[in-house]
Amino acid sequence: MNSTPAVTLYPLGGLGEIGLNCMALVSGESMIVVDCGLMFPDDSLFGIDVVIPRFDFILANKDKLKGIILTHGHEDHIGALPWLMRSCDATLYGSSFTLALAAKKLEEHNLKEFTHFEAVEGGQTITLGDFKVTFFPVCHSIVRGFGLGIETPAGRIVHTGDFKIDRTPLDGHATDLPAIKAFSEKGVMLLLSDSTNAEREGFALAEREIKSALAGIFKEAAGRIVVTLFSSHIQRMQEIYDLAHASGRKVAVSGKSLFSNIEIARELGHLRVPAGAEASLDDLPSLPDNQVVLLVTGSQGEPLSALSRLAYGEHRQIKVQKGDTVILSSRFIPGNVRAITRLINRLYKLGAEVLYESVQAIHASGHAHAEELRLMLRTVSPKFFIPVHGEYRHLVKHARIGVSCGVAPERALVIEDGQPVTFSDGLIRLEDPIPVEHIYVDGKGVGDVGVTVLKERQLLAGEGLVIVVMVVDEKTGELTFGPNILSKGFVFEQHYSHVLEDAKCIVLDIYENVPPGQSDLLKERIRSALRRFFRKVLERDPVVVPLVITL
Amino acid sequence: MNSTPAVTLYPLGGLGEIGLNCMALVSGESMIVVDCGLMFPDDSLFGIDVVIPRFDFILANKDKLKGIILTHGHEDHIGALPWLMRSCDATLYGSSFTLALAAKKLEEHNLKEFTHFEAVEGGQTITLGDFKVTFFPVCHSIVRGFGLGIETPAGRIVHTGDFKIDRTPLDGHATDLPAIKAFSEKGVMLLLSDSTNAEREGFALAEREIKSALAGIFKEAAGRIVVTLFSSHIQRMQEIYDLAHASGRKVAVSGKSLFSNIEIARELGHLRVPAGAEASLDDLPSLPDNQVVLLVTGSQGEPLSALSRLAYGEHRQIKVQKGDTVILSSRFIPGNVRAITRLINRLYKLGAEVLYESVQAIHASGHAHAEELRLMLRTVSPKFFIPVHGEYRHLVKHARIGVSCGVAPERALVIEDGQPVTFSDGLIRLEDPIPVEHIYVDGKGVGDVGVTVLKERQLLAGEGLVIVVMVVDEKTGELTFGPNILSKGFVFEQHYSHVLEDAKCIVLDIYENVPPGQSDLLKERIRSALRRFFRKVLERDPVVVPLVITL
Repeated sequence: MNSTPAVTLYPLGGLGEIGLNCMALVSGESMIVVDCGLMFPDDSLFGIDVVIPRFDFILANKDKLKGIILTHGHEDHIGALPWLMRSCDATLYGSSFTLALAAKKLEEHNLKEFTHFEAVEGGQTITLGDFKVTFFPVCHSIVRGFGLGIETPAGRIVHTGDFKIDRTPLDGHATDLPAIKAFSEKGVMLLLSDSTNAEREGFALAEREIKSALAGIFKEAAGRIVVTLFSSHIQRMQEIYDLAHASGRKVAVSGKSLFSNIEIARELGHLRVPAGAEASLDDLPSLPDNQVVLLVTGSQGEPLSALSRLAYGEHRQIKVQKGDTVILSSRFIPGNVRAITRLINRLYKLGAEVLYESVQAIHASGHAHAEELRLMLRTVSPKFFIPVHGEYRHLVKHARIGVSCGVAPERALVIEDGQPVTFSDGLIRLEDPIPVEHIYVDGKGVGDVGVTVLKERQLLAGEGLVIVVMVVDEKTGELTFGPNILSKGFVFEQHYSHVLEDAKCIVLDIYENVPPGQSDLLKERIRSALRRFFRKVLERDPVVVPLVITL
Repeated sequence: MNSTPAVTLYPLGGLGEIGLNCMALVSGESMIVVDCGLMFPDDSLFGIDVVIPRFDFILANKDKLKGIILTHGHEDHIGALPWLMRSCDATLYGSSFTLALAAKKLEEHNLKEFTHFEAVEGGQTITLGDFKVTFFPVCHSIVRGFGLGIETPAGRIVHTGDFKIDRTPLDGHATDLPAIKAFSEKGVMLLLSDSTNAEREGFALAEREIKSALAGIFKEAAGRIVVTLFSSHIQRMQEIYDLAHASGRKVAVSGKSLFSNIEIARELGHLRVPAGAEASLDDLPSLPDNQVVLLVTGSQGEPLSALSRLAYGEHRQIKVQKGDTVILSSRFIPGNVRAITRLINRLYKLGAEVLYESVQAIHASGHAHAEELRLMLRTVSPKFFIPVHGEYRHLVKHARIGVSCGVAPERALVIEDGQPVTFSDGLIRLEDPIPVEHIYVDGKGVGDVGVTVLKERQLLAGEGLVIVVMVVDEKTGELTFGPNILSKGFVFEQHYSHVLEDAKCIVLDIYENVPPGQSDLLKERIRSALRRFFRKVLERDPVVVPLVITL
């Protein structure tokens, strides 16, 4: 008796965290990869630039790799490409907009010219080895995102990508449920669906509601309007341009990432700037206030962004003034709340009115809420269901939603990164876990900053460092230099010269009591005595580095 | 013509930030201080323990100081007392519960025995020099908080303290609006009112609703129940004890701050533990799961808290298991969101069900929402209004609410810390600003860690540090030791020995090209060359400390 061929799913990131989205699908000699995202570090990861998935599994099987599919252009889906593509030359598939963003990123790492790009359209089907992949347009907070219908030798898979189901979508921004339904009618073995908002009931706000709220603000505003938003949210930018045009305003742009994304979107026809709705920053001072819209970067309070420069009065062309309305059409990412509210307070002090999500509905999540997730589950009606794109709690809640929509409880699987699942004969099998990891990128170093170095940075951050230098004569055991004490990030030395003098006496005392030649013992004693001393007199515990040079 | 005596208000903290609440009122030779709070540092304040107000103004006038009034026992109202009371011996006034918390804090700093405490009751009036202060019970997220009615030679002032107006209060936890109304009927010159929730419309959730939600959870839970909450929220604890008792459960407590506050509250009769509703941690294993409630610290994800130990399987007596329900009856403070959600995810992995504010209404803010603020404004009907207790944006919004309630726009003043206001003859005058500051406390150091040290800590945190040591013979200019390179928090040295070797060569090269005797030049060249080198090969920019010893 022949069994059907097996397909194995390898989640490498995104199942257990928001970010790092990356998975591989393997069937015999064919492998495809879906997404290749990064994650931004939290504050405990001192000095880390970005976090990326561990790619060992993909690289070990790269002879099988038929293509990398990018569902959409957000950093958590394409941001880790530079670190994968330096060791891998597969073709990237996605919408032309997604690929343009990926190309820009690869260009910054000098990898663009070595990469093959294949743009696909919504509704198109491509064959990659054993896999046939159909691209379904989905509505999300970036244009031209796709969900995937994947025909495999072991059955059909639907991967939603990041999506929401906007019931009243603006032109060209609907999730193509009919196409997903048509694909699913032949029977879907597995649904992989976005869990980000599984804890939020009902429907996400529709973009139409946001546009209408923005329209109200544009109507009321007597002075200049400043808008900040996520730099990849082309749809929202279109609304701003349209509203500006309708109210006789011109839009100027400030901030590098906005410029670059607007350029790409215009080139590809995803952003249509109405004739006469543009201004340069230098034009602004000569325009009446009620004809000005300024689109700026900085929705997360980033220190060098245009919004930050405006709030601190350091923007070259523009000064915020009484009568200005500043709109933060974006979410406050939790780690950035203090930075963002600091800007808001400063803008108020400059006399501006400031509007943001918590006081007015001017931002909508791009991820489906529970009711939309149910709609997707009922549309696909899968045999198996694996929630993806979420922290563990989101995956658990989404699995429960799956069960409430008719998935058998034993077929709604909460699995995490590194847990492969094989589908064969309509059954599943959990394979032995493969190594996955959050790889830390610091400058050019990939994965070299680990627990030890981070721990050291944490200690240095909290208490600073004290260096003790002394030179001892090898023959006589006499002190020929020092002890000198210097510090970094410890105390303001001018105010604490007496403490540092006392510390020197302690070091001298130890030196006199340690037999010559035992410099390791000497160093250890110095370290522990100074730590004790600083704890006692200052209640601080700096890193102590004793340097004893024997000459 | 005699003018009425002047009273001047000196805001020292809390007008422009949430935290640091502290103000002085001066009339002739009398000064009173209202509250003396701290603020917890954000992540950018590396190593700082707490932030306190600058007390110079109080200390410079301490001969006039008639008393310090504490509205309630939260850290942002009493937490800075140890730093004020070490230089000041005024009497503290407040409810017995508030004073007990203050006393505990002062005891930790060996200041309790030098401090005078005078407990007051709701409704009581005391005279402090030129001021007559009446204490109004208010509803807040801590028991026995007071608003203040202050009769001054220049007119009546109402200071709300932190409050909400619970329309259906649980026994003994109402804001005494009738008393405030009675006080106000004779005419109030100035209202100072809590602005924390000025941006939130409607009414704050009532504690009765929280209790009812908790009752539903207690009814459903088949296994053990674990509850975490703010350790000072005695009212909420009472609800937990009552619900436990009613459902045949016993409450055990884990976590130092809970123990201590429960002890104080029981002693003063603010927490009544029903007979038979207690258990010790060691009893728990022998109790059936459905008879257990565990009250734990850790609602903000603090690393060593009881909840954290539970989530990481490191709690000595208890292991979280399938069937347990964990309730976070608390707010997620923005800077702690990642730490808290990390615990939630871990608890889910252990099989527990976890409930928290964003998925269920199990926490209520203790601060009035806009509708309640309007009620207060209409009850007091003040001539002047100064919003307090908020960031600048909250003060602005609250001032607008004041105007909407009939305060004349020019009499609703948004002022910040350090801006004194004098009231006299029914008029006001803004005085010259006095110096105010966020004073950083690091261990025993108060105010000594400033911008320079913090900047150094930030650099060390981000990139670590590299030390270069060498000894040069004074006479010959020969190198007698080194260059040796060591690092902290920079790279994992084993993996980068080649980079460090290259760095040594660079240092040697510089040494050979700098004329002997110019060790400052040598150091500067080493520093800049190594920074350039590390930026180029690693894209990192550590702090470089060159130590050149001439012997």
